[in-house]
Amino acid sequence: MSTASTFACGPLLASIDSPADLRRLEPGQLPQLCAEIRDFLIHSLAGNPGHFASSMGAVELTVALHYVFNTPYDRLVWDVGHQAYGHKLLTGRRDLFDKNRKFGGLSGFPSPAESEYDTFAAGHASNSISAALGMAVASRMQHDDPKRNIVAIVGDASISGGLAFEGLNNASNTPNNLLIVLNDNDMSIDANVGALNSYLAHLTTSKFYNDLRYKAFKALKKLHLVSDKRRGALLRFNNSLKSLITKQQNLFEGLNIRYFGPFDGHDLPTIVRVLNDIRDMSGPRILHLRTVKGKGYAPAEADPASWHAPGKFDPATGVREAAKPDPTKAPKYQDIFGETLVELARQNPKIVGITAAMLSGTSVSALQAEMPDRVFDVGISEGHAVTFAGGLAKDGMHPFVAIYSSFLQRAYDHIIHDVALNHLPVTFCIDRAGLVGEDGATHHGVNDMAYLRTVPGMTIASGRDGKALRRLLYTAQTYDGPFAIRYPRGASDDIDWRCPLEAMTIGKGERLTDGKQVAVLTIGPVAADAAKAVARAKDAGIDAAHYDMIFLKPIDDEMMKEVAEKDCPIVTVEDGSRNGGLGSAVEDWLQDNGYVRTVKRLGVPDKFIPQGSPKELQHLCSFDSEAILEAINEVTAK
Amino acid sequence: MSTASTFACGPLLASIDSPADLRRLEPGQLPQLCAEIRDFLIHSLAGNPGHFASSMGAVELTVALHYVFNTPYDRLVWDVGHQAYGHKLLTGRRDLFDKNRKFGGLSGFPSPAESEYDTFAAGHASNSISAALGMAVASRMQHDDPKRNIVAIVGDASISGGLAFEGLNNASNTPNNLLIVLNDNDMSIDANVGALNSYLAHLTTSKFYNDLRYKAFKALKKLHLVSDKRRGALLRFNNSLKSLITKQQNLFEGLNIRYFGPFDGHDLPTIVRVLNDIRDMSGPRILHLRTVKGKGYAPAEADPASWHAPGKFDPATGVREAAKPDPTKAPKYQDIFGETLVELARQNPKIVGITAAMLSGTSVSALQAEMPDRVFDVGISEGHAVTFAGGLAKDGMHPFVAIYSSFLQRAYDHIIHDVALNHLPVTFCIDRAGLVGEDGATHHGVNDMAYLRTVPGMTIASGRDGKALRRLLYTAQTYDGPFAIRYPRGASDDIDWRCPLEAMTIGKGERLTDGKQVAVLTIGPVAADAAKAVARAKDAGIDAAHYDMIFLKPIDDEMMKEVAEKDCPIVTVEDGSRNGGLGSAVEDWLQDNGYVRTVKRLGVPDKFIPQGSPKELQHLCSFDSEAILEAINEVTAK
Repeated sequence: MSTASTFACGPLLASIDSPADLRRLEPGQLPQLCAEIRDFLIHSLAGNPGHFASSMGAVELTVALHYVFNTPYDRLVWDVGHQAYGHKLLTGRRDLFDKNRKFGGLSGFPSPAESEYDTFAAGHASNSISAALGMAVASRMQHDDPKRNIVAIVGDASISGGLAFEGLNNASNTPNNLLIVLNDNDMSIDANVGALNSYLAHLTTSKFYNDLRYKAFKALKKLHLVSDKRRGALLRFNNSLKSLITKQQNLFEGLNIRYFGPFDGHDLPTIVRVLNDIRDMSGPRILHLRTVKGKGYAPAEADPASWHAPGKFDPATGVREAAKPDPTKAPKYQDIFGETLVELARQNPKIVGITAAMLSGTSVSALQAEMPDRVFDVGISEGHAVTFAGGLAKDGMHPFVAIYSSFLQRAYDHIIHDVALNHLPVTFCIDRAGLVGEDGATHHGVNDMAYLRTVPGMTIASGRDGKALRRLLYTAQTYDGPFAIRYPRGASDDIDWRCPLEAMTIGKGERLTDGKQVAVLTIGPVAADAAKAVARAKDAGIDAAHYDMIFLKPIDDEMMKEVAEKDCPIVTVEDGSRNGGLGSAVEDWLQDNGYVRTVKRLGVPDKFIPQGSPKELQHLCSFDSEAILEAINEVTAK
Repeated sequence: MSTASTFACGPLLASIDSPADLRRLEPGQLPQLCAEIRDFLIHSLAGNPGHFASSMGAVELTVALHYVFNTPYDRLVWDVGHQAYGHKLLTGRRDLFDKNRKFGGLSGFPSPAESEYDTFAAGHASNSISAALGMAVASRMQHDDPKRNIVAIVGDASISGGLAFEGLNNASNTPNNLLIVLNDNDMSIDANVGALNSYLAHLTTSKFYNDLRYKAFKALKKLHLVSDKRRGALLRFNNSLKSLITKQQNLFEGLNIRYFGPFDGHDLPTIVRVLNDIRDMSGPRILHLRTVKGKGYAPAEADPASWHAPGKFDPATGVREAAKPDPTKAPKYQDIFGETLVELARQNPKIVGITAAMLSGTSVSALQAEMPDRVFDVGISEGHAVTFAGGLAKDGMHPFVAIYSSFLQRAYDHIIHDVALNHLPVTFCIDRAGLVGEDGATHHGVNDMAYLRTVPGMTIASGRDGKALRRLLYTAQTYDGPFAIRYPRGASDDIDWRCPLEAMTIGKGERLTDGKQVAVLTIGPVAADAAKAVARAKDAGIDAAHYDMIFLKPIDDEMMKEVAEKDCPIVTVEDGSRNGGLGSAVEDWLQDNGYVRTVKRLGVPDKFIPQGSPKELQHLCSFDSEAILEAINEVTAK
């Protein structure tokens, strides 16, 4: 297979070390540059996996933005940032691409810490309009120069999030020159959902519309509803007619944002012309571009969902390694969840699955394939996903809401107010819990145990392997209240995970190894590393015990009492923040029950953790097997 | 002054013990009932304060909904619930109104624990559409009977929240019979903001529109764009024409939700007729009613913002007790914040104030009065408020974002991703932190210390009095990163609070009383109760120390070392959750620094706390002065 180091970068792309170099090119050279960027992306990502199809679809708009706008003085704010690889190539990071998403290398998302061209945090969807509006207002308040332009680039999936709507709703409140580029590829990571999407799909230039426009205009002019001179009314007339014909209204004009489009987002000369035309207009504007996700690479155009993050592939044939599953390898945790959900749904008619634009990312797709009527993909709307689940649960259903840990932060209030307050039976399937690896700081799911532990009535659990995940899922659907189950990104250790579906006792942990000198308490799959450390400690003559807590809340009173009565030091290990999670819970229990013990807490320190392999990051955070052994040695040496 | 017990309930209202009684009335009797409800509300709330103007404006729509729909089988889902007092009166709770918002009495908001007519949690805005959609889908999935109706009642302010948009965007995704009643009084608690609001203001039936409608229809019919038979096209034609004339588009039709209105929300016969007409239609529908906040009581109609929650008043004269401020009384914490913000903004041109629909509730109104260009009221959009602040801070401004603690939960991810990740200088002014009293479970701000402590780089502080709040605000604007300052609802103890604006040292607490036998560690205004308890302990011969931590994070290392070296038991006191807040932070510090000490944590237990006076609730939660003294006695007795 080709790798990033074995292909030659095209001559135009090789000459661009910053957007200033780009702006010295002739307009006629830009299509060649786009071809070279695509070629670079194909060959680089073939060997060093990353987000592929979004960046392929955004090549022309990326080149056009840096060509027309005076970056970095003008500000580009990318939403999510899956599409920003072209932007990174043009802004001095071409030679670092072989370290994309690697420890110590480039972030997979725009990152202000990495480059002045990356103006704002990206990774979580729908924030670009609000952030860019803040920059636009800040620019107006501080500078006399009205020429600084602020551009938010947002996909059609991201714009359906509530935060984006709040930004749109506020965009016309104050004087500003915000430009919103809607990159509409009719896809989110999975196929798009929601009324807004069907609205966008219809908002196309229709031949019928153009034919009729002149005749209708003449007819309405007689009624003095429109005139050639009243340009504003004319614009509105066109929008009204468009909505009459497309059976849709222009939502954006309704929010006082001038709308331009839709245009073909791969027609570079047109985009450059339109951007030049609207660049210096005042007031908020939206430019609607239609693009093709995966554009320029046939396999990706044909199956953009699989090519969102394709893994390694052969650039010549388009065959993805991931498309050749290895039955001897253990499945991912998300697949154990997805397949178990189907088994449970067959038995329990109350169960429905909910995902926020991550059907395949969470493997809710398995239930979708078998029982599409019992799956709700609500789009990028984590808050709605949870409140909607609360409504379903209130009237008799049992929703399983599968959301990545770091994205579930968006629904924190909804968990408290719309589910926990009335103790409704909603099961939160918290995927990507803990350090996620290559996606980095925005995606690590390290806060959930701390932010959920303070919610009254919430059950919080994590199994140490795929079998335990299955049993927890089974248990949750028998329970009449909120139940959170966290599990990590990536593969489980279990090839043989299809254990019988049996209930666990809520609030009961498991003693894995007995011992008297030190008790190691773990939650979740870090149990495996802890078990290795405990075994090595035993070999070295330290009589270490190992307990799998399984439940963070309610914590196992009986087991905690057993641990406390040993009167030995305790080591806690968790794939989550050291502030407020398992370690804090153990300390709290001990104090509440009158025990004063040494507790050494291992977990994620109080810092934002960068990208890297999970192993590298666990080592960095000092809770890998080696670090656990060190902790055992340290507390027993006292 | 009149009180709830001294007035007579009208005869019709007195005869209604449930909506079934209401439905036995003749239509002609309903206006009299509405008058009796208003009379009841005026006289009841005059002596026992509550939310007044919203419920006065919703009387007719409340009567009409219970008259037309078969409650409780049909479901009414109230958004926020300020407007639901009429609903409570009609659903068997009339005789409990003198205990409204009191400990052991009625909740001030709809509460499923209180009545089967209260279908869902209310208190936080914008959740009704998503929750009702869940109920509508649950009903369709479980019952053959298609006649169960689900109605969400949402105000024009709540519908601007991102969660409401997410609900609207998903409403047409699945078959359901959701009816959304938009109660549009052109007000939130303060005057409404945002493009959506200006959109609603324009969406009125115009005489011009009705005159032109026929002529324009004839003209377009010639072009075969519309026809009498094509009813769908006709409807769209009307909408298009309406948008042409009103210069606005119909947003809701753009989201595939059938739109009816606007109608006069006080015209009871019309509302009853329209509700009957649209009740059994299938698919999501929105009914737009124009209402007057405070309707039927002249002082409230004239000044609906002040009469949102007017406090006690004289029903005959309309004079509010709150309108006669007592200069001998200490100001509210929110006013100390508001006036200090003005002082700081005069000195520091980077400072701007941001509020989410709570200009007067947070006293950002003070800055608004003096420097309106430096205040942003973003409407009910806490997420946008924070991300927008991140954008402002990224490009040079220093935003002070004032949001109530429990509402800030809505912006949790935004705090992490859009502010803390890039360590941007945003100051979070967390009002209503801790137990808020009469607003009850949905409004207690008890989670913020736990959910913020896990956020890397976040500074978290709370002063013990008004002077300390001032100094913290001053300190925050000198700091180049996220800074959270929490302060409670209600009055401070400081009449003389206008101290010089001086910086505090970040991460430094203060020893208030020295002692050797026990160390009491507090954060925030609970220091006063702790000081009393410590003084009483001293009187009883217990040598107690008292430390005001001021900073939860970074915690004062030097002071903690001083405390730890005493080798005495520790009592922590906080007006917040015992799980993950100050007590946990103190335990974490001790363990991280090799100290093993007894720590007794006083604070809010792991339960949802009902309404009551702050004193009653602090006693209930065992952290009032008495409870602190008991804890001191307990840990020193060992």
